Amino acid sequence: MDPTTKINIPESTLERVVIVGGGFGGLQLARKLVKADFQVVLIDRNNYHQFQPLFYQVAMAGLEPSSIVFPFRKLFQGEKNIFIRMAEVTHVDPVARQIQTPLGHCNYDHLIVATGADTNYYGNEELERRTLPMKSVSEALYLRNSILDDYEDALTTPVYDDRQELVDIVIVGGGATGVELAGSLAEMKTHVLPKDYPELEVEEEFDIYLVQSGDVVLKGMSADSSAKALKYLEELGVKVLLNTRVNAFDGKLVTLDDGRTIVTQKVIWAAGIKGVPVPGLPESAITYGNRLAVDRFCRVKDTENIYALGDVAYMEEPEFPKGHPQVAQVAIQMGEHLAKNLRYRHLRGEEWEPFHYHDKGSMATIGRARAVVDIPKPEFHFGGIMAWLVWLLVHLFAILGTRNKVVVFLNWLYNYINYNQSLRLIIRPRSVPESR
Amino acid sequence: MDPTTKINIPESTLERVVIVGGGFGGLQLARKLVKADFQVVLIDRNNYHQFQPLFYQVAMAGLEPSSIVFPFRKLFQGEKNIFIRMAEVTHVDPVARQIQTPLGHCNYDHLIVATGADTNYYGNEELERRTLPMKSVSEALYLRNSILDDYEDALTTPVYDDRQELVDIVIVGGGATGVELAGSLAEMKTHVLPKDYPELEVEEEFDIYLVQSGDVVLKGMSADSSAKALKYLEELGVKVLLNTRVNAFDGKLVTLDDGRTIVTQKVIWAAGIKGVPVPGLPESAITYGNRLAVDRFCRVKDTENIYALGDVAYMEEPEFPKGHPQVAQVAIQMGEHLAKNLRYRHLRGEEWEPFHYHDKGSMATIGRARAVVDIPKPEFHFGGIMAWLVWLLVHLFAILGTRNKVVVFLNWLYNYINYNQSLRLIIRPRSVPESR
Repeated sequence: MDPTTKINIPESTLERVVIVGGGFGGLQLARKLVKADFQVVLIDRNNYHQFQPLFYQVAMAGLEPSSIVFPFRKLFQGEKNIFIRMAEVTHVDPVARQIQTPLGHCNYDHLIVATGADTNYYGNEELERRTLPMKSVSEALYLRNSILDDYEDALTTPVYDDRQELVDIVIVGGGATGVELAGSLAEMKTHVLPKDYPELEVEEEFDIYLVQSGDVVLKGMSADSSAKALKYLEELGVKVLLNTRVNAFDGKLVTLDDGRTIVTQKVIWAAGIKGVPVPGLPESAITYGNRLAVDRFCRVKDTENIYALGDVAYMEEPEFPKGHPQVAQVAIQMGEHLAKNLRYRHLRGEEWEPFHYHDKGSMATIGRARAVVDIPKPEFHFGGIMAWLVWLLVHLFAILGTRNKVVVFLNWLYNYINYNQSLRLIIRPRSVPESR
Repeated sequence: MDPTTKINIPESTLERVVIVGGGFGGLQLARKLVKADFQVVLIDRNNYHQFQPLFYQVAMAGLEPSSIVFPFRKLFQGEKNIFIRMAEVTHVDPVARQIQTPLGHCNYDHLIVATGADTNYYGNEELERRTLPMKSVSEALYLRNSILDDYEDALTTPVYDDRQELVDIVIVGGGATGVELAGSLAEMKTHVLPKDYPELEVEEEFDIYLVQSGDVVLKGMSADSSAKALKYLEELGVKVLLNTRVNAFDGKLVTLDDGRTIVTQKVIWAAGIKGVPVPGLPESAITYGNRLAVDRFCRVKDTENIYALGDVAYMEEPEFPKGHPQVAQVAIQMGEHLAKNLRYRHLRGEEWEPFHYHDKGSMATIGRARAVVDIPKPEFHFGGIMAWLVWLLVHLFAILGTRNKVVVFLNWLYNYINYNQSLRLIIRPRSVPESR
């Protein structure tokens, strides 16, 4: 692409806000700038928003990708000041106030970096090459296909050790993703697989390992909830290895830091994330976890008119001296706050207000009728079926679109009644013509 | 794979029926052999049955793949005489009574070839390489992604001619698939695209061509229904080119046999099918359209204990001297009939009964409230909204599984009320680890 090519966006007398990334933060910002006196350009590599908290259910064949993602164009139908472009932003030039994409370049008056985070392998290239990540709906779908493929292969693998490689699964990381995935997999092992694969000894042969470097799971939650989550996982038959790290994985054998080994071909890596800032930003702005240092107004350090929010941003405030947790709530609140500063204070020449995060609590689900919830103020923790119902409701309301809500609700109801995720399908788009 | 490896299937004293292909015919046969005194092995390259009549709705973003496919294992849960293996059958040895797959070989007492049909390019390799087929749910999904990708690209393509390549679509073949696809695409053009892409001149610039070699569309139906379908298509703005063939397509330009050209990158090939028999069967058994010649008992010519049914079989009977139409009904009736002959007559040493096809009629839908139905006895044709409702009901009842019926019904209802297919998502499973 000729770098002088411009992305085709109409000229306008309005200031142009370019948002890179339509995750929780970027999308919230764009929605709050609808009908504002800005020309808003939302750039994402996909044509849809992804509801990350339910990726694990896609991987576990409980939900279809389409019911937890939402097309941007549908969301902004009829909004004349919002322009959507599907592209990867490859570079930003803060001096020229310009971003570069394979479609051409685009000038901005305000640039918002809402590019989120990606899987962190902490520099271990072997693990990066060989383990399965789960940071996008596409990766979740790939994981689903892999798991189902391997069970099919196990059927025609007569040797016990070879079969173990196919049916055992190691999950690395005891955060929400790892815990929810392990719980869901354990439920599938108990309720679905023995019926689908009567020829295999599911109960005896299928093992699920959860490897966690710390001494608790769900480290960010209360001690109470962490302990409860661990108990739930063990009740479900998950082998939780605390204070343990994965040192190596050669594609067939996992080696732990205490020398123990596990035979498996499938290692799911949910052990950490790192920010993915847009290339071209000053080195001095990059801080802990590859995140962009921002002030209380989301302004990226050593830049002008460039802001960051959500997982890619690192902001300190008195209550959170080591930055905010990298969760959806922070991104959403930052998006909303920045929109207000731009729309009401910037356009009227008023002084901006600093951001303050309101923690509404956190939760995780481990399986049917098993979940944990922490409420911060007044501090209160609870678990079991009540927590599970709260988890279901909160997530249902957070999903975009009435149709998706209904579809997800019906799927949950169906799976609950039938003990039976129904989407155990290995479907891959089949590319045929060579010219495409 | 060592050719002496055996597929891992338990030994049994029962005769073994191996069914290759779980389409309409193979699946019906397997279902009718549940609890029979046979060991049944169903081999398919996928782990699910596909409901082909609705592929076009997957391609048009109206339905999710998962709602029109059904996992074999779920269908046969708890059936002890049915074994499912996911593999491609690469060869049959009629003398050794053995089939070969990448998983190993498998002996049979009765082999049923139910491998169906695939796209027929009539020997034109250029068309095979460059056009888009639609004979599987994976291909339908790929087509959906291509169409949406190209609309996104059109947004950033300022030159009119370049844009035409992206937004115009040529469908080749005026059978049910071509007609239903064209009708559905035209509806999307009218109701959805102008809202999603206000920046493009959808009405003026987007053209849908349907190229048909014969002088009518839906050639297999009554003259009445063919004429009505043509009228419906033209009302929807589809440019139907009758008595026309595609001579060449270089990836950017379609050349018709009368010398006219159409600028487009997307040609959907629905112009014909050919049988895909398993390699290793005698040459003498292969007849018109690459199908296997069978007698009235589905026995493949010049073989023993090998049967064929559905699209891959060619059977003549007095009422159908040129063979049956290649439709789902024929396959289903053959599967059911062969099951009866095997289960009741073969096992009891009785004489087999010859197959006779009962034509229940045919139908096609062209868009909202537009469809045509032919009933054969007494002969009767009707169209319009009544035909459309009949089409909806018949297809809804034919879809496997209560959950799928409910999901498809809700999708249809939603799309009908909203004039808005909701699944306009470009999702591809993302492969990451190199070792897999």
